[in-house]
Amino acid sequence: MVQNEKALQLHEEWNGKLSTTAKCSVKSREDLALAYTPGVAEPCKVIANDPETAYKYTIKANTIAVVSDGSAVLGLGNIGAKAAMPVMEGKCVLFKEFGGVNAFPICLDTQDTEEIIRTVTNIAPAFGGINLEDISAPRCFEIETRLKEILDIPVFHDDQHGTAIVVLAGIINALKVTGKAKEECRIVINGAGSAGIAIAKLLLNYGFLHITLCGRHGILAKDTPGLNWMQEDMMKVTNLENAHGTLADAMTGTDIFIGVSGPNVVTKEMVASMNKDSILFAMANPVPEIMPDLAKEAGARIVGTGRSDFPNQVNNVVAFPGIFKGALEGHAPQITEEMKLAAALAIAGLVPDHELSEDNILPEAFDPRVCDAVSNAVKSHIHS
Amino acid sequence: MVQNEKALQLHEEWNGKLSTTAKCSVKSREDLALAYTPGVAEPCKVIANDPETAYKYTIKANTIAVVSDGSAVLGLGNIGAKAAMPVMEGKCVLFKEFGGVNAFPICLDTQDTEEIIRTVTNIAPAFGGINLEDISAPRCFEIETRLKEILDIPVFHDDQHGTAIVVLAGIINALKVTGKAKEECRIVINGAGSAGIAIAKLLLNYGFLHITLCGRHGILAKDTPGLNWMQEDMMKVTNLENAHGTLADAMTGTDIFIGVSGPNVVTKEMVASMNKDSILFAMANPVPEIMPDLAKEAGARIVGTGRSDFPNQVNNVVAFPGIFKGALEGHAPQITEEMKLAAALAIAGLVPDHELSEDNILPEAFDPRVCDAVSNAVKSHIHS
Repeated sequence: MVQNEKALQLHEEWNGKLSTTAKCSVKSREDLALAYTPGVAEPCKVIANDPETAYKYTIKANTIAVVSDGSAVLGLGNIGAKAAMPVMEGKCVLFKEFGGVNAFPICLDTQDTEEIIRTVTNIAPAFGGINLEDISAPRCFEIETRLKEILDIPVFHDDQHGTAIVVLAGIINALKVTGKAKEECRIVINGAGSAGIAIAKLLLNYGFLHITLCGRHGILAKDTPGLNWMQEDMMKVTNLENAHGTLADAMTGTDIFIGVSGPNVVTKEMVASMNKDSILFAMANPVPEIMPDLAKEAGARIVGTGRSDFPNQVNNVVAFPGIFKGALEGHAPQITEEMKLAAALAIAGLVPDHELSEDNILPEAFDPRVCDAVSNAVKSHIHS
Repeated sequence: MVQNEKALQLHEEWNGKLSTTAKCSVKSREDLALAYTPGVAEPCKVIANDPETAYKYTIKANTIAVVSDGSAVLGLGNIGAKAAMPVMEGKCVLFKEFGGVNAFPICLDTQDTEEIIRTVTNIAPAFGGINLEDISAPRCFEIETRLKEILDIPVFHDDQHGTAIVVLAGIINALKVTGKAKEECRIVINGAGSAGIAIAKLLLNYGFLHITLCGRHGILAKDTPGLNWMQEDMMKVTNLENAHGTLADAMTGTDIFIGVSGPNVVTKEMVASMNKDSILFAMANPVPEIMPDLAKEAGARIVGTGRSDFPNQVNNVVAFPGIFKGALEGHAPQITEEMKLAAALAIAGLVPDHELSEDNILPEAFDPRVCDAVSNAVKSHIHS
């Protein structure tokens, strides 16, 4: 594939997609004496007396770590730390270019949960936030939960929450187009890993009541064998009728399908079995759970995918740069549920009612208004 | 002090002395598809198959970590990770501005030796080298030694080896000026911490034979109580006569004094007791072990300090940027003793014989030739 060859060649030319840049000049002895010894001792002493001033005098003000253990990278799976670097560098580039946030890739040569928690805790002083990335489930849940307890800076697993925020934004607008009410919508989520579970949680927090999670073997129920602890937790708040069956069974009579699973797992028949004006987010990459034209033929009203060559792209880049920009500017100690909901509403709000349509429920990735809208939404919920 | 106030104010304006910069453009969907998904999967797959290609496709090619636990920062002592950040950021700025090396500060929220070793090992995949900084002795020796065994990238404790390299460079030229022969020189080093011990080791490797280390309580001898394991090791190769006594006793009849200790600990009488054409490197900062004018009055021929407002400044900045530039360009797995000796000779060689004088034994910190001279010296010893 020509694009892949070009990507490889460009990566060789770039020889690393990030560099560090000095914000201060060191062209003279006077410069050195101010930026380095002896002058540098002054901010050191002030921070030693009042650690909060690290936000005033150091890169903690505007720098985050993009942390991965390389265990669940894109569609590539467990490729390890070194091989994950191009993705993490790319993510850092997006943080900078879309959000003005300095980000540095930390790829960990361990996949042990405790080691990861200790390592991230140990390196935290330099950073104003931690973006977890491409860490496999269910380890990602424990790592994020524990780090949030330990650290006084935001910890955010983008594969979970970034995805959930953009999906919710799209659904908020899809409901407007279809006239459906959230309390009455029945939702099926296919894929019970990090993204699927985070989407379910955020949709519940937004006010949806009827959500069913499906995994590789169909509907997840209380008595499904082999559930991890997070999936067990989710069984207390989803599939309240304790239904059993296949994905096809689950989709019958529902309003919304959300796929974070694999290619072509949804058929036209399954779409046809859904309620009228059905909404599908088929986000498997690069091949969606069902191609948009097939879904439409089978009666779907709104279809979103992860791809930029179809309408309604669900792209995390409209969320994560603004999330961290807002959190850093406000010195937020955490990204709360309220901030995530506010971010989703802000993203949805960028498509005004008169522009909303079946093929226009989300702002473009390159829409210049997105980052500040999200950032302001996050900031408005700091200390609230 | 006006300079300190200005330094503090500037640090607030900078709000972090480093930023990250994207080397690739992400202004269009096409850009995104090459720098991020789906194109980024190509270099990931290549690296997964051949980890060595990380040097080709990622920032490992030209990026190091500046790692500190904040336990021995400048003259400030154990001020901790957050308060150490301005120094580490400054060091990163110097790496970039003097050596073109991308450097990122990693300040560790632990001072436990094993935790530090594990943490640095875990974060190593992103980096082409590790510069240890301001870690207290004797922990710094074990941390460096162990990390060199574990990692396949250079690990270099600049407080030790950077200082030792520049001191050796200065001494090489001081011997030329004074006509002294290294085999006959008697040397006293005051300060038996990380810098003092590294200087002693490098001078021994260069061919000096008679070195005495002094600590807070005078000459270190085999039977001195309270020696740490590294100091005990050094007793096998220094103070071969097993002398006892004060610093004043140690200095009597010696040719070279090297101070990495504290202000004003050397008197004119002590200098007067040294051999003719004595050489003093009084590097305590900001107040040297003896002021240059006093040392000269007492008979010293050559005096160097750490200060830029006196002749013969001993400044690590002539060493560390070039050391890592060369190591990164050559993918060196280690900084060897041969590289350190070659770097010292390269630095010394930048002052040609006809320019050498009592007040001109070292190149200036801002001499634009320094970095490449050191870098080439290091590279010429990779795989040799």
